[in-house]
Amino acid sequence: MSVVALAGGTGGAKLSHGLQQVLPPGALTVIVNTGDDLSLHGLEISPDLDTVMYTLAGLANPDTGWGLRDETWSAADMLARYGGPTWFRLGDRDLATHVRRTDRLGSGATLTEVTRELCDALGVPSTILPMTDDPVRTRLRTDDGWLDFQDYFVRRRHADDVREIRYDGAESARATPHVLDAIASASLIVLAPSNPFVSIGTILAIPGIVGALGASEASVVAVSPIVAGAALRGPADRMFETLGGDPSALGVARHYAARFPGLVDTLVIDGRDADQAPAIEALGIGARPADTVMVDEAARARLAGEVLSVARERAGSRVPPRAPTRASPGS
Amino acid sequence: MSVVALAGGTGGAKLSHGLQQVLPPGALTVIVNTGDDLSLHGLEISPDLDTVMYTLAGLANPDTGWGLRDETWSAADMLARYGGPTWFRLGDRDLATHVRRTDRLGSGATLTEVTRELCDALGVPSTILPMTDDPVRTRLRTDDGWLDFQDYFVRRRHADDVREIRYDGAESARATPHVLDAIASASLIVLAPSNPFVSIGTILAIPGIVGALGASEASVVAVSPIVAGAALRGPADRMFETLGGDPSALGVARHYAARFPGLVDTLVIDGRDADQAPAIEALGIGARPADTVMVDEAARARLAGEVLSVARERAGSRVPPRAPTRASPGS
Repeated sequence: MSVVALAGGTGGAKLSHGLQQVLPPGALTVIVNTGDDLSLHGLEISPDLDTVMYTLAGLANPDTGWGLRDETWSAADMLARYGGPTWFRLGDRDLATHVRRTDRLGSGATLTEVTRELCDALGVPSTILPMTDDPVRTRLRTDDGWLDFQDYFVRRRHADDVREIRYDGAESARATPHVLDAIASASLIVLAPSNPFVSIGTILAIPGIVGALGASEASVVAVSPIVAGAALRGPADRMFETLGGDPSALGVARHYAARFPGLVDTLVIDGRDADQAPAIEALGIGARPADTVMVDEAARARLAGEVLSVARERAGSRVPPRAPTRASPGS
Repeated sequence: MSVVALAGGTGGAKLSHGLQQVLPPGALTVIVNTGDDLSLHGLEISPDLDTVMYTLAGLANPDTGWGLRDETWSAADMLARYGGPTWFRLGDRDLATHVRRTDRLGSGATLTEVTRELCDALGVPSTILPMTDDPVRTRLRTDDGWLDFQDYFVRRRHADDVREIRYDGAESARATPHVLDAIASASLIVLAPSNPFVSIGTILAIPGIVGALGASEASVVAVSPIVAGAALRGPADRMFETLGGDPSALGVARHYAARFPGLVDTLVIDGRDADQAPAIEALGIGARPADTVMVDEAARARLAGEVLSVARERAGSRVPPRAPTRASPGS
């Protein structure tokens, strides 16, 4: 069995870790959003890639949702003393990741290659792939104008209303062969409970990825990042309000159905949202209530198990073949 | 009073710190060897500049002679895990210095500008100047061929016999206006007890510096880095043996007299070497025995005080004016 997950940071990393727990070693490939990447202190930083990598390596800080556990902050203190920007704090061990990445990229390695090297060094048993090796930068229009993603997300603590989203560079970016091959050979594709606009949406904006998903015969199971009308973390709920839509499991289903018709086969929703299942199924998307709040590592594995069982049930009952229904726009 | 010291790392940093203690704030300018600089992990590292800076900021590690005190090593551990070179260990706070320097150099700042910024941030009350903003790399021919300086010095623990020294890039490097102005306006010039070959020698290899020293009317007082026939630290004594000369205070005097005739007015030697004073004075160089072993901060200040009193005595007795005797080769 070969499973591909599309993921952003925290929620995507947690479900990926759950999948890694329940799958045989090497069976999981995580395709990660790089639209949140930034340059800081002259270093190339890929926050979502790192969150997924640290989580799958068992090194993530369980309290913050980002960074490494048992971290020290000596370099950050010194960089602050030197007058460097302080709004995006980098721990010492995390800093080493960015130093190494920047060094290797400067030597001509691709982000895909560097990510593999870093993951190998940390003993990650899964494959982590950047969605593209080309630079893509998510930008958000707020009432204060266009902001870089991390400026909006970290520095301004995602307090601004988002009026519009742009994926700068996406149009000319290319999905890597690694990404396309992983999708083509997947027996299950999972859209992690990451932000549909600025995590999953960014990945799906890379030319070739929606087409590859449409060409695949694998089930596509999404997990709702909205539980009981709110995002567990981050601004996804408020983005539904300002960008159009409803911050609910049904809103997530409608979002994917409208933008990527036929893409999602089943949406795993939280048990608290089970009453929305009929309306979701009326969109042609299966709805499976489950406990989607991953409070600990065991909960990650349980949710991953649910996702796998949904896929198994679909595979056993699939009539007619789904591929023809997945012609998707822009692919 | 305006004092200029030419310095390498440890010994140069210590005497500079002594001078800073006994001089009014702002009166000291240290011109530092950058021939030992290296690129590592994609970062630009200036070991001698940093040793002088950390020492004059009161932040140096007193046990090692390099790096910062109260240092942590998280990033170094992680960089090692990523397969980076481990022979040149960088502490976390020290790493921040290199990240900041590399970032600012990448933005187009000169090494002189970056050094001033870093020193300002650390509250250094003196001026620290790189000998040049151009790249110069000291290389050493050993029985295993030509080695980069830090390869020889740190990785191979200066165990190789040095047969020849080259200052790559020195011929086309330019002394900065800051260096030339500092020398021109100095009332005292100090050659710190740094290695005459690969610290002071490197600085003197930069076109314009020997000429500027020759044009100055300031006293030039050198402090011998050789005490009782041995270098207190580093390979200076063995370099005298393999490159020609004698590892002694007299050997230091002969070295400067032969290569830079008329440059050094007085050599401060250790009390243990007082018997060499007559032979040194026969070279036309004054000899002043003192306690040159700087075992603590008070000893640094005492030695600095000796240097200043030598200069004051010279200034009171100078007949005839020295400048004409300082025509120096290559200037």
